[in-house]
Amino acid sequence: MAEKEKLSIVVFNGGLDHAQAAFIIATTAASMGMEVSMFFTFWGLNVIKKNEGSIPGKGLIRKMLNLINRGGSKRLTLSKFNMLGMGTWMMKKLMKEVNMPSIDELITMAHQMGVKMIACTTTCGVMGLPEDAFRSEVDTLAGAAYFLGEAREAKATLFI
Amino acid sequence: MAEKEKLSIVVFNGGLDHAQAAFIIATTAASMGMEVSMFFTFWGLNVIKKNEGSIPGKGLIRKMLNLINRGGSKRLTLSKFNMLGMGTWMMKKLMKEVNMPSIDELITMAHQMGVKMIACTTTCGVMGLPEDAFRSEVDTLAGAAYFLGEAREAKATLFI
Amino acid sequence: MAEKEKLSIVVFNGGLDHAQAAFIIATTAASMGMEVSMFFTFWGLNVIKKNEGSIPGKGLIRKMLNLINRGGSKRLTLSKFNMLGMGTWMMKKLMKEVNMPSIDELITMAHQMGVKMIACTTTCGVMGLPEDAFRSEVDTLAGAAYFLGEAREAKATLFI
Repeated sequence: MAEKEKLSIVVFNGGLDHAQAAFIIATTAASMGMEVSMFFTFWGLNVIKKNEGSIPGKGLIRKMLNLINRGGSKRLTLSKFNMLGMGTWMMKKLMKEVNMPSIDELITMAHQMGVKMIACTTTCGVMGLPEDAFRSEVDTLAGAAYFLGEAREAKATLFI
Repeated sequence: MAEKEKLSIVVFNGGLDHAQAAFIIATTAASMGMEVSMFFTFWGLNVIKKNEGSIPGKGLIRKMLNLINRGGSKRLTLSKFNMLGMGTWMMKKLMKEVNMPSIDELITMAHQMGVKMIACTTTCGVMGLPEDAFRSEVDTLAGAAYFLGEAREAKATLFI
Repeated sequence: MAEKEKLSIVVFNGGLDHAQAAFIIATTAASMGMEVSMFFTFWGLNVIKKNEGSIPGKGLIRKMLNLINRGGSKRLTLSKFNMLGMGTWMMKKLMKEVNMPSIDELITMAHQMGVKMIACTTTCGVMGLPEDAFRSEVDTLAGAAYFLGEAREAKATLFI
């Protein structure tokens, strides 16, 4: 039996635009029969953080950073032209108008299509993020070695 | 007959610096005998928009977004140190001094060397960009499935 | 004898966050027995510039740009939430607390593990950077053709 072709994606930037691109590519690849894994690291972890709940992290600095960098699919902003939220609001409105699924819907779709989502252990360590800071669609926490294991078997690897 | 090795590039960020890197890599690869395809999406579409002409898009919000995010190779700015245009002006001056081709010239060169340029249908849909918003060197409009078809046959894929 | 699997990384963005990600991936890959090459271009050159010494570049504009864009591993800032340096200071403090190596230490480690570091000739030409603007761990200066030679043999290529 032929093995499935793999696609490996690092989601590093936590922008709404980057998340949208990453999940559209991931779900399209899955629908084409590819095996997709998404490795969320640094600001990218914001995409898969829960939208509700308290601010995690031990110590004042960590609490502050996790407050500023709160994350959650509903709090993502555009990496360009955010314009104090107005650009992001405009883009979301236009996306809705053409029936593009939201990040929340894309995460659910990706999960249902078997896309694997992994949160980077190292960043979680630095930022003091416990496993339950992430939504239920996230499969596991793992490090760079795990990502490289996927990448070297993948047909293509994207750093987004 | 041996097949040509492929290189697949996603141009996501519309910065002058990103565009310069993407086209230098693309034209170098083409000169080495590789088959190159460039997939322009999100802010990256600005690189291949026409420099002249009216602002496209139906509805006030779309018109406004396309005004702010006007694009065209001559309007690109650096993603860092733009400094209200001064950084971009300085960089362009230095590039000219060492005879580096402009983005305009790089697009023409790439096209003449057979580099394929594709505009992302999905982003065009959201932003209301018609096919004639793009310069003549652009080959076609296509979606993520097209890009993935290229990427899985490519020796390397870059997300820029 | 089996050839080593290759990993090819372009370091384009000079952020502290991007540098940290690039070097953690590079050193992890080297520890897994992969052959890693890092190609530093554009703002990425800041990561491997010497921390001390005078400002290089002929002509006023070049001098000014190299002053603003000074670089050196100790001067890198976060690409997001720098907040006039406070965000970067907070992140460095948290990284130290969990014993994460600094960029300086990661560069030394990478060099000792055989990771090849290459500075992009083209950017050096534009910015007027002589070879001795870079730290001793940098192996050589080379152009896009060199990078593409590595990328087409690599198991994975990342544009960071």
